[in-house]
Amino acid sequence: MPDSGERVVPHFQEQLEVLKERLLVMGGLAEERVRAVVEALVERNVDLVDAVQMGDEPINSLHIEVDNRCFKLLALHQPMAADLRAIVAGVKINTDLERVGDLAVNIAEAVRRYLLHPPVKQLIDIPRMAEIAQRMLRDALDSFVRRDVDLAQAVLNEDDKLDALKTQVFRELLTYMLQDPGTIEPGLDLILISRHLERIGDHATNIAEDVIFMVSARDVRHHPPGHVEAEA
Amino acid sequence: MPDSGERVVPHFQEQLEVLKERLLVMGGLAEERVRAVVEALVERNVDLVDAVQMGDEPINSLHIEVDNRCFKLLALHQPMAADLRAIVAGVKINTDLERVGDLAVNIAEAVRRYLLHPPVKQLIDIPRMAEIAQRMLRDALDSFVRRDVDLAQAVLNEDDKLDALKTQVFRELLTYMLQDPGTIEPGLDLILISRHLERIGDHATNIAEDVIFMVSARDVRHHPPGHVEAEA
Repeated sequence: MPDSGERVVPHFQEQLEVLKERLLVMGGLAEERVRAVVEALVERNVDLVDAVQMGDEPINSLHIEVDNRCFKLLALHQPMAADLRAIVAGVKINTDLERVGDLAVNIAEAVRRYLLHPPVKQLIDIPRMAEIAQRMLRDALDSFVRRDVDLAQAVLNEDDKLDALKTQVFRELLTYMLQDPGTIEPGLDLILISRHLERIGDHATNIAEDVIFMVSARDVRHHPPGHVEAEA
Repeated sequence: MPDSGERVVPHFQEQLEVLKERLLVMGGLAEERVRAVVEALVERNVDLVDAVQMGDEPINSLHIEVDNRCFKLLALHQPMAADLRAIVAGVKINTDLERVGDLAVNIAEAVRRYLLHPPVKQLIDIPRMAEIAQRMLRDALDSFVRRDVDLAQAVLNEDDKLDALKTQVFRELLTYMLQDPGTIEPGLDLILISRHLERIGDHATNIAEDVIFMVSARDVRHHPPGHVEAEA
C-alpha cells in the first residue's frame, strides 16, 4: 500500500483539524442538551423542556456539514491508512452525536409528560446517570481528538456504571408503581428517561470503540466482557 | 474533481458487488432475528428466546468483515463520486444492521421476563409492528442494492405507521396497568419491546435516507415532515 506521504494535498491536515473541531463543537452541544433536559426534569422547568425540544437545529446542521466535510476529504485528498481511519471514524462519530441530539428530544418528551404529575420521588439516580453519560461523551470525543486509547478504554469501562444505575432505577420505580397506581404513569416516563440516558452512554461507547480502532487498527467491538448485558 | 474512470482498478465493481451482497446477507439475518424473537413472544417459546439471545455472533462477524471491506475499497481503489457515496453508505448501513442485531437481543431479554408472567392480553399490535419493521429493513436494503430512490422514500413513509402503533400499544397497556397491578411488570416489558421495534424502524429509515443521498446526492435528513414526533 503506498505511503500516504506522497499523496498529501496542501491543507489536508488543516481540514482534518477543522473536522475534529466541528465534531467537538457538536459534542459540546449534545452534552449541553443532555445536561439541560435533566435540569428541566429536576427543577420541573417546562420552559427549559421547550428549549431542549425546539433546540435540535444546530446539531442537525452540523451533522450535514460534518458529513460533507468527510466526503470532501475522502474525495479530494484520498487519504490512506491512519488518515483514512480518522475520517471514517469521523463519519461514524457524526452519526452517534446526531442520535444523542435526538435522544435529548425523546427525553424532553418524557419529561413533559412526567411534569403533568406530582413528583414520584426525589431524583438522585437519573441525574447521576446524566452526569456519567455526559462525561462519557466528553471523554470519548477528547480521546478522538487526542488519539488517546487509554481514555477511550476508560469510557468503555464507565458503561457498566450506567447499566447498573438503569437496573436500579427500574427496580425502585417498579416497587413504587406496584404500591401506588398513581405513580404508574410518571414512573413509566422515568424508566424511559433512564433508558434514553443509557443509550447516550452506548453512543459514547461506540465513539470510544471507533477511536481504539482508528489509533491501533485493533477491533475491540463484540469482545468487551459483558457487552450485551441482561437488563433489569 | 477528476473523473473516477481514470482511477478504476480491476475488480473494483466486483468488490463493490460483494460488499452489497454481504450487506444483504446481514440484513437477512437481522430480519430473521426480529421475526424469531417476536415468534418466541407470541408462541411463549423460551427455547427460541435462548436461540435469539445467543445468536448474535454471525451478524457481529459480518459487521467486522463489512467494515474491513469498506476500508479496503476506500484505501485501494480511492473511488470518486457515486462509488465513494456507495461505500460511505455501506459503512453507515453496516452500523445500522449491527444495532438491529443488538436490539433483537434487547427484545429477547424483555420477552424472557414477560414470559415469567401470565399473558396480559392477546398480542396483535406488537406482531404487526415487527412485520412493518422487517419489511422496512428489507425494502431499505433492496433500495440500496437497486439504487431505488422511490422504494427508499416508501420506507420513510412507513415509519409513521410504526410510531402510531407504538403510541397505541403504550396507551392500551397503560389502561391495563392502571386497572390491574398484576399487569404492571409484564406490561412494562411489552412497552419496552414496542420501543425496541420502533428503533428497528428508525434504523431502516436511516438506511433509506442514506440511499437517497447516495443516489441523488440530495440530503433528506432533518427535513421529513414530523421527523421528531411526539411520543405517546
